[in-house]
Amino acid sequence: MSTPHFDRIALIGIGLIGSSLARVIRREGLAGHVAIATRSPATLKRAEELGLGDSYHTDLAEAARDADLVIVSVPVGSSGEVAQAIAPVLKPGAILTDVGSTKGSVIAQMAPHVPAGVHFIPGHPLAGTEKSGPDAGFAELFRNRWCIFTPLPGTDPAALETLSAFWRACGSNVDTMDPDHHDKVLAIVSHLPHIIAYNIVGTADDLQTVTKSEVIKYSASGFRDFTRLAASDPTMWRDVCLHNRDAILEMLSRFSEDLASLQRAIRWGEGDKLFDLFSRTRAVRRSIIEAGQEVDAPDFGRQQAAGQPKG
Amino acid sequence: MSTPHFDRIALIGIGLIGSSLARVIRREGLAGHVAIATRSPATLKRAEELGLGDSYHTDLAEAARDADLVIVSVPVGSSGEVAQAIAPVLKPGAILTDVGSTKGSVIAQMAPHVPAGVHFIPGHPLAGTEKSGPDAGFAELFRNRWCIFTPLPGTDPAALETLSAFWRACGSNVDTMDPDHHDKVLAIVSHLPHIIAYNIVGTADDLQTVTKSEVIKYSASGFRDFTRLAASDPTMWRDVCLHNRDAILEMLSRFSEDLASLQRAIRWGEGDKLFDLFSRTRAVRRSIIEAGQEVDAPDFGRQQAAGQPKG
Repeated sequence: MSTPHFDRIALIGIGLIGSSLARVIRREGLAGHVAIATRSPATLKRAEELGLGDSYHTDLAEAARDADLVIVSVPVGSSGEVAQAIAPVLKPGAILTDVGSTKGSVIAQMAPHVPAGVHFIPGHPLAGTEKSGPDAGFAELFRNRWCIFTPLPGTDPAALETLSAFWRACGSNVDTMDPDHHDKVLAIVSHLPHIIAYNIVGTADDLQTVTKSEVIKYSASGFRDFTRLAASDPTMWRDVCLHNRDAILEMLSRFSEDLASLQRAIRWGEGDKLFDLFSRTRAVRRSIIEAGQEVDAPDFGRQQAAGQPKG
Repeated sequence: MSTPHFDRIALIGIGLIGSSLARVIRREGLAGHVAIATRSPATLKRAEELGLGDSYHTDLAEAARDADLVIVSVPVGSSGEVAQAIAPVLKPGAILTDVGSTKGSVIAQMAPHVPAGVHFIPGHPLAGTEKSGPDAGFAELFRNRWCIFTPLPGTDPAALETLSAFWRACGSNVDTMDPDHHDKVLAIVSHLPHIIAYNIVGTADDLQTVTKSEVIKYSASGFRDFTRLAASDPTMWRDVCLHNRDAILEMLSRFSEDLASLQRAIRWGEGDKLFDLFSRTRAVRRSIIEAGQEVDAPDFGRQQAAGQPKG
């Protein structure tokens, strides 16, 4: 399996994902030239200060011109607009991909603009942290994470293989699925958890009987685990909610139904029912650790992160 | 502030909290003799293999006899039974405390059994991990965490100060509050987060459209954050739900109300409303980090915990 090499890669959007790509592309030598584009002059300036690429553009088309690989890493609500801006300059044989968390909506927005001869292969690396912006990226972000492609009918297998090899070189495992199934899977593994986290942090923030300073002070007893997801980029998550609406509403209904049943068990003192649920969920974490998708250290390994010796 | 020293400390219950206490008591030299008691012969044997104490008892009263400090670390539903078992042997002047996550219920269960002359001071160290049992404990568990006392009217200030000094020597910060207020605070910072985490993991586990193996494989995109709390001890959490029912039901109602409103905003495409909530919650995490109750490393510092170099 040879390492892929592109003469010119254009990164449209240089936030957490885009800037992590820039870093790993450089480290692995995956491109002759990395063209970085964002409409925000301040963000572009920061990317240049960090030396993330070889050329810097506020004009998206200028970056995409002559690129062999164009990676769009913007909030999903901006996908259509970006596709429209860069489509006219895309060269035949180029691969166009994205990193958006919703695939049905991104395809609907982008596909109509893609010229014949350009390989549009929607993608989604399941990687991220609660930080955003060009400073937040790091080359290891994709390591041992999954990148899911949702190829359209008639996709050139060679182009898909080239893109897969690129993501493997970035450290990812790759997978393909139907866009609709992707959107259902992500609704449960990613979108619902973020929405629930945002909601519980909002609920706590609104209380009068318990002060905000108490919530903060005593957060280590559980609450703080939710604050990481609830610190994620608001623009990105607003767009996800608006662009994967149906799958999210379906998962929210199931969640609320289950919560009502749990609430009833608490109200009526059904200890066995509570014990059964609380035992079953323990096994799920064990499986995730065994699948190499989570650390086994207690408390997510925060102790080590804080530099605290373990007694 | 001198380090407190007790001739004999009895640890009733030797799970995560009890065994962490045993370790820090030894390290800091806080007792002449540590008597360890649990009704489970297997757990007691393990505690002895680990060398956690100086004497080992399946008879709780035997451990508590002549102790200057008795710390009850059992699921809150067993508090009354434990108090009844040890009450007859408690010596005058001894301090009796607990570590339970609910205080109103523990006081109702234990106080009636406490003989005159014994200082019963309910307590709750806000510390823990998702692991349980005597192997899971470590001496650093309480470091920089809060221990909340909910003293009863007429509590001897000297006894409270002695117990506070003990917990400070274990690494904790100490605080006092009314039991009823404690139960409300914990309902939001600890109990609701655990219940929500258990619930979402249960919901995901029940899906048919998305397979269990997909949930596990792609969990790093958000879901896995919930699995830590949902891997907590089922007996402990069943008891918490049953013993802080009213405060938990109140918080669940607020949470569900807020979630219904958020769900409506998603259904009707109210982007500004979503953006406002998602921005507000970001600030909460910042405050928790500033309060020293959370690490600032992305992803809870999992990268470091997994021994992955940062690129």
